[in-house]
Amino acid sequence: MEIGIIGGGGVAQTFGAALRGLGHTVTLGIRNATLAELDKPRQGGVPLAEWQQKTGGKVASMADAAKATLLVNATQGEHSIAALTSAGADNLAGKVLIDLANALDYTRGFPPALNQAYSGHTSLGEQIQGAFPQTRVVKAFNTIAAAVMVNPGLIKGDHDLFIAGNDAAAKAEVTDLARALGWSTVLDMGDITAARGTESLLPFWLTLMRAGGPIVNLHVQR
Amino acid sequence: MEIGIIGGGGVAQTFGAALRGLGHTVTLGIRNATLAELDKPRQGGVPLAEWQQKTGGKVASMADAAKATLLVNATQGEHSIAALTSAGADNLAGKVLIDLANALDYTRGFPPALNQAYSGHTSLGEQIQGAFPQTRVVKAFNTIAAAVMVNPGLIKGDHDLFIAGNDAAAKAEVTDLARALGWSTVLDMGDITAARGTESLLPFWLTLMRAGGPIVNLHVQR
Repeated sequence: MEIGIIGGGGVAQTFGAALRGLGHTVTLGIRNATLAELDKPRQGGVPLAEWQQKTGGKVASMADAAKATLLVNATQGEHSIAALTSAGADNLAGKVLIDLANALDYTRGFPPALNQAYSGHTSLGEQIQGAFPQTRVVKAFNTIAAAVMVNPGLIKGDHDLFIAGNDAAAKAEVTDLARALGWSTVLDMGDITAARGTESLLPFWLTLMRAGGPIVNLHVQR
Repeated sequence: MEIGIIGGGGVAQTFGAALRGLGHTVTLGIRNATLAELDKPRQGGVPLAEWQQKTGGKVASMADAAKATLLVNATQGEHSIAALTSAGADNLAGKVLIDLANALDYTRGFPPALNQAYSGHTSLGEQIQGAFPQTRVVKAFNTIAAAVMVNPGLIKGDHDLFIAGNDAAAKAEVTDLARALGWSTVLDMGDITAARGTESLLPFWLTLMRAGGPIVNLHVQR
């Protein structure tokens, strides 16, 4: 499958490398698609020239990456709508977009809070779905560290991947992809408004991380 | 032990009844401590006259309830500091106060969001600790339905009670009480700032409730 990931930071690189490992064609879409960008340091990752060499993935403009069949939003949440707009609503229309971003507020340092513009009675997932109504947004993978997204076996025992979205077929497709990455428990939380719940896990996750490190996740029990 | 619970609604009644069942003396403290109040309907519970008869617990003013040895805040979060103030800072000084409240925003109906005044870079637990610096606040039991607080066996398998607070001895005391109620896994999340994390679970819990009912909890896996 051709997969376009909007974003070039650590999460985009980790997710993209794992999808390359599954045999997919992967293109990372970055804002300033010049050759000089390939050698620059990337937050949480390596220079993109190095990522290309290691993985066999490509780097392109956001609009070119968005020409792929399946799309992933791996930008920082507060910049996601601008990035997806520059990728082009036409390129996004009709496609599944996995939104693994979180909109955080670092204005008071670490730990960040949820960004108020994207939380409370709304969520980033809902706002992306609202901005791109023809795109089949599936909120997923946003509640765990990138290393766990692509390797759930890092954590012992049952633990869950939470997904949310309005389109059942899109959620089924994302569930298949998650299973290919090793996820055995994928919990469908409901329509895209359920992103309020899964994005709200971030402050709890940060508290768990502070207590015992980032390789941590949750299992829902009933 | 003498336990004073500030609040008279369903959560206060359920928690108080369970503590009575463990043999403790329990007093619910209500705002308007008149005999006429005992027959009024209570949100999520029964009239307090009925609660007294069923449980052998007492009902008193908030200040009188706060004369007990161990205290519990079971008021609605947005009213908690006013209620505890009326209970009397002197009565609260030096005592363990279990804060099981959440501050929610119902201005747009159901589901509520977290109340902005008590979330983000702060939390209700921290604000209570700040308002009553001599009180040993332990945030606990706020992430689950009242029925589960007092009967964790309603849920199959391992699932966790999250506690947070600045005073290690107070947390040990609350852990003992939780074990007496049947909790086998009590996770100490850290100091009272960890209440940001545990209070942030509410929107996620509401999403889980919408998907499959309120008898649900989480197990942390590493």
